[in-house]
Amino acid sequence: MAHPFAKRRQAAVFELKQRKLDCLLVTHPANWFYLTGFTGEAGVLVITPDGSTLITDGRFTIQARAESPGIRIEQQKGGLFSAVGEWLKDKRIGRAGFDPGQWTVAQLEATRKAAGVKCRALGAGGIVEALRMKKDSQELAVMRKAATLAGEVMERTFRLVKPGVRESEIAAEIEYHMKKLGASGPSFETIVASGKRGALPHARPTSKRLKKNELVVLDVGAILGHYCSDMTRTVFLGRAPRRIREWYGAVNEAREAAVAAVKPGISAGEIDAAAREVLKRNGLDRYFVHSTGHGLGLEVHEDPRVARGQAIRLEAGNVITIEPGVYVEDVGGIRIEDDVAVRSPGSEVLTRVRRDLIEI
Amino acid sequence: MAHPFAKRRQAAVFELKQRKLDCLLVTHPANWFYLTGFTGEAGVLVITPDGSTLITDGRFTIQARAESPGIRIEQQKGGLFSAVGEWLKDKRIGRAGFDPGQWTVAQLEATRKAAGVKCRALGAGGIVEALRMKKDSQELAVMRKAATLAGEVMERTFRLVKPGVRESEIAAEIEYHMKKLGASGPSFETIVASGKRGALPHARPTSKRLKKNELVVLDVGAILGHYCSDMTRTVFLGRAPRRIREWYGAVNEAREAAVAAVKPGISAGEIDAAAREVLKRNGLDRYFVHSTGHGLGLEVHEDPRVARGQAIRLEAGNVITIEPGVYVEDVGGIRIEDDVAVRSPGSEVLTRVRRDLIEI
Repeated sequence: MAHPFAKRRQAAVFELKQRKLDCLLVTHPANWFYLTGFTGEAGVLVITPDGSTLITDGRFTIQARAESPGIRIEQQKGGLFSAVGEWLKDKRIGRAGFDPGQWTVAQLEATRKAAGVKCRALGAGGIVEALRMKKDSQELAVMRKAATLAGEVMERTFRLVKPGVRESEIAAEIEYHMKKLGASGPSFETIVASGKRGALPHARPTSKRLKKNELVVLDVGAILGHYCSDMTRTVFLGRAPRRIREWYGAVNEAREAAVAAVKPGISAGEIDAAAREVLKRNGLDRYFVHSTGHGLGLEVHEDPRVARGQAIRLEAGNVITIEPGVYVEDVGGIRIEDDVAVRSPGSEVLTRVRRDLIEI
Repeated sequence: MAHPFAKRRQAAVFELKQRKLDCLLVTHPANWFYLTGFTGEAGVLVITPDGSTLITDGRFTIQARAESPGIRIEQQKGGLFSAVGEWLKDKRIGRAGFDPGQWTVAQLEATRKAAGVKCRALGAGGIVEALRMKKDSQELAVMRKAATLAGEVMERTFRLVKPGVRESEIAAEIEYHMKKLGASGPSFETIVASGKRGALPHARPTSKRLKKNELVVLDVGAILGHYCSDMTRTVFLGRAPRRIREWYGAVNEAREAAVAAVKPGISAGEIDAAAREVLKRNGLDRYFVHSTGHGLGLEVHEDPRVARGQAIRLEAGNVITIEPGVYVEDVGGIRIEDDVAVRSPGSEVLTRVRRDLIEI
């Protein structure tokens, strides 16, 4: 059986040939990790049908040799992108694919200048991202662990949430505990948004202290074995008034409806609609200001987007978040988020933490 | 007295005019924060002689109005960069400056397409970065506090370093404590590199446990009030053998020589040479595999580079790191790093933590 990295490179080469490209120039760290296992911070990976070459600087050559067997390592002399251009010229590459969303104008200019006029740089975006959408069983096993770890951190966090504690203190505890449990770090800046601040879906933790009778949104993700988890729970400090309980119930029902819709063949837009429909029925759809979810993997936001009108059809191996919410100005926010893998048949919810309204 | 943000925009406009540009398109978050105070995550700031406009999406308009008085806020409809292009077309901008190192090829294409043929996008890199090099007294006051905070964290860390503890545990404690002390987070991934791993200048913390008779490199930076600090200390677990004490002494002397050289008018390359010269005299220059330092401010690596041959002359208000080191394969690393502000006359060392060899 071929090593997963080699299999993935084969799949990339297949795509290259479809697009009549001689090589693919990979500059995005999550993409080169996916294709080679290299975890260094600088370099360009060149995928060709005859094999792959990583061009990098002296800081990373020893590491690259250890991490990426089967890849040729070339140490650049001078700038990285002029080295890439010289390599293309030297190998007489005619058609080189690059992702216009991942290359700066300056990088492309330096590469073109050194490559000369016989090499054409052609826009070829999303090739590796498309492969990354479909996780294999080893990736799913790691993502299950990353989701479990985030769940353990969340359950500890419930015990810390009480009036008088600062948002920033809780965020610090969350990130500390995930590292103690083996995470390499948070997969995004932890969100602890209390009271009115919860109405901002992307609020950063502040020195604000939690108060009685407030909602607190806790959005937590951990990176474990290079893969991300991402989950949200919302708690109420005190006995929730009926209005809050109703909103919470509607968000939770929206989450359930979206999760129930997940299966191979359904479109990402249909999943979004399943959540939105429940909130609409409860008169809350105008408070649901973002999309229902996003792909998850080596990066915390990756394809597919689970948003209105997205026609892309899910297949077994996709992992997405389901995270409906309502955000009411001057009151606060409620969001419930789980990680869900598409299986054949059906789905598997990776996040396993209670979802009823917690009143503390 | 004009608000510092307004003064900075005036300085940017002066540069624009020098380059005969009608506007500058700012996409880099540290740059738009410097010019406006906006801390949102998405947008394009357009600086013109007649005032400035921030084009952003619905998530950030309320925040932008609160954070950036005196800036027009435009909410994009559709994609950000096509909105920027339409704005340029609408305002009949002829010459728009952008930084080729900060724009992706896709962003430039989308902007050009919407702006039409009468607008030329012209490479204009480093304008804001050049302004950011010279810190004003308020910025220096914040950076002093950020350096002090990192120092406090470092002093606590000395008490945690002992045989049996994992590198990753110490890194987690460091980042936790800095947040408890008010930092918004680390300014880079904390380095705890013990034993042979210290020979890699950019080693990431692993689950390796510290052992007796090892060197441990601790490289710590905190972000406080948006500004970064960055400091390194190296400790020895046990009684250091003579060879280690000699290397440490040479690195410390190199640091002292470089700090002593800091003053207005000296070139960055001369400071690098001052450190390198001491290590050469001690037969250690081949183990000093990186440059002596870098600028520090809103970002942890900014201009000026303090490296071999850099001709740029320092002036009062620059803040740089001084961080000579030696890295010996199969033995380990020694690095000592302080943050230093250029003053008139002389300099001010912002980092105040003991620099002698600590044997634990």
